[in-house]
Amino acid sequence: MPAMQNDTLLRALMREPTPYTPVWIMRQAGRYLPEYNETRRKAGSFLALAKTPELACEVTLQPLRRFALDAAIIFSDILTVPDAMGLGLYFAEGEGPKFERPLRDEKAIAALAEPDLAKLRYVFDAISLTRRELGGRVPLIGFSGSPYTLACYMVEGGGSDDFRLVKSMMYARPELLHRILDINARAVAAYLNAQVAAGAQVLMIFDTWGGSLAHDAYAQFSLAYSKRVIAALQRQTEGRRVPVILFTKGGGMWLEAMADSGADALGIDWQTDLAAARRRVGSRVALQGNLDPMALFGTVEAIEREAERVLGSFGPGPGHVFNLGHGVSQHTPPEHVQALVEAVHSRSLAAHAA
Amino acid sequence: MPAMQNDTLLRALMREPTPYTPVWIMRQAGRYLPEYNETRRKAGSFLALAKTPELACEVTLQPLRRFALDAAIIFSDILTVPDAMGLGLYFAEGEGPKFERPLRDEKAIAALAEPDLAKLRYVFDAISLTRRELGGRVPLIGFSGSPYTLACYMVEGGGSDDFRLVKSMMYARPELLHRILDINARAVAAYLNAQVAAGAQVLMIFDTWGGSLAHDAYAQFSLAYSKRVIAALQRQTEGRRVPVILFTKGGGMWLEAMADSGADALGIDWQTDLAAARRRVGSRVALQGNLDPMALFGTVEAIEREAERVLGSFGPGPGHVFNLGHGVSQHTPPEHVQALVEAVHSRSLAAHAA
Repeated sequence: MPAMQNDTLLRALMREPTPYTPVWIMRQAGRYLPEYNETRRKAGSFLALAKTPELACEVTLQPLRRFALDAAIIFSDILTVPDAMGLGLYFAEGEGPKFERPLRDEKAIAALAEPDLAKLRYVFDAISLTRRELGGRVPLIGFSGSPYTLACYMVEGGGSDDFRLVKSMMYARPELLHRILDINARAVAAYLNAQVAAGAQVLMIFDTWGGSLAHDAYAQFSLAYSKRVIAALQRQTEGRRVPVILFTKGGGMWLEAMADSGADALGIDWQTDLAAARRRVGSRVALQGNLDPMALFGTVEAIEREAERVLGSFGPGPGHVFNLGHGVSQHTPPEHVQALVEAVHSRSLAAHAA
Repeated sequence: MPAMQNDTLLRALMREPTPYTPVWIMRQAGRYLPEYNETRRKAGSFLALAKTPELACEVTLQPLRRFALDAAIIFSDILTVPDAMGLGLYFAEGEGPKFERPLRDEKAIAALAEPDLAKLRYVFDAISLTRRELGGRVPLIGFSGSPYTLACYMVEGGGSDDFRLVKSMMYARPELLHRILDINARAVAAYLNAQVAAGAQVLMIFDTWGGSLAHDAYAQFSLAYSKRVIAALQRQTEGRRVPVILFTKGGGMWLEAMADSGADALGIDWQTDLAAARRRVGSRVALQGNLDPMALFGTVEAIEREAERVLGSFGPGPGHVFNLGHGVSQHTPPEHVQALVEAVHSRSLAAHAA
């Protein structure tokens, strides 16, 4: 593999000094980019795009051609693991992800098993190809949904307003949910390790729905299993540490516990005060975030002001990766993303030099 | 008005000792009760039900006939104020509330004005009637949406996943949003004061969407305007204090600031650790909450255990009103609500006696 030209992301995630604050954007390869929509149209569907390594590589690289981003993240979905378990991932037009065969009874749960990683080869091939194409320009991030977030989709069969099915199981038959989570944790760890073997240099665990849990339940049903994943991860590749980022959307109240998860960095949503978050976790982890994705619908001046506010909120010193607090909206003007990336770089460079 | 027979709610909200922990349930008059569905069918629609004082009174009283609840809350909607402003509230089947004429341009915002309270007379009549029918059995709670939550619906025209329209206004044209919020704050204060004049004994402000805001924006666009409402409220009626409850769903990180809002009590969602919440707000406010509504889908034993856990989490001493952390689900078995109310009363009575 070629030498890394820009390792600011890796350094910031390890809380090492960097000349400026690195920035990448959740869902940076996505529908707000016309070239993405064009490639997706050619692929025929989101899943065909994700499952064709050449096309997944192409859309992964697209935002890097436009913006001076400090990381690439492999184009994929958080739900590839349950799909490989045989649940049948699909996307209904205009809706979120769904499963054809959700886990609705004890028999289905008893039959659940870790997937054959060969079924996820399209992800590993996309990662290897993208690493080659990147040529060391920036690091490549691999990822998965957290065990609990996967379980939400696996039991509900799709997104949910209230997570009634998975929580009914949690409150009425917790042992069934624990069985799913146990299998998910082992599967996610194996999957992420295979991503590292294929070339991923950073790993991120998306706990999209952990924030829907009650305080105690979060610790028991979400964080405990993310911890198991992290403990089983390969943390060294190509002579460097593989930093792990844990992101629980809506988890701002639980950062102290998350900082003890073994993760190197925590994703922070926009509702959380970054200054307070930093005080609370101290020097245990780096922080990634946390601009409101909707701030990109302001004027360019407002975007610059908001970028500066987030940078100022984290304050001086190492350990900050700039990002949105959630994925970029498909309606975002690409030139506003451009303005954000430039503002983060120029203003943090000035601050670091000061 | 007849003398109050059960004032545990009023006492707990003022942090005075009570023999047991009072309990009521958000949306206790609602679709999980067959008798509610029967009355609603007769009314023809949700809005016809809410706008007919005799029927609104009837459904307000229904849950009290079944369960030993310590409060009634007037059956109404959080969006009555913008409806009276002329935005045209309606409910599409199976969807949330919507407005026929959302605020989409400067002209509509310039034309916005506080409503004639006469248009909300159906609410005041329902309150007066319900007070008479209650005969002093338990106190009656009046309520409104917060200025920011109203603005969300007024600009979006309905619910939203990302609040793109109202947040675009916030980031690109904040002065327009401030104008809406200023009018909303004055209208909500006048509306709540008229509810007290009609017989409401407790007031609750539902800030359902404040939790979607970034940390700084919450203080500026939501809390600041709820504070203005609270400062303008009539706090004395029939020789007693009118306690005010402020509830921001997803606002667990901002409790310290909310405790300085002038509210007597804060609503707490289920994601928040009640023990930590109490430590953070100290003796400034009472706390109301915070069982996960989905816990009511567990077994009766699990419901009892969870009730005990919430009671234990608040701990000994005055200032706790038991509630769910959000409205009860329409799919909840009524006998599980029964089990919850009984568990809260019996276990807190034992704890208070101990």
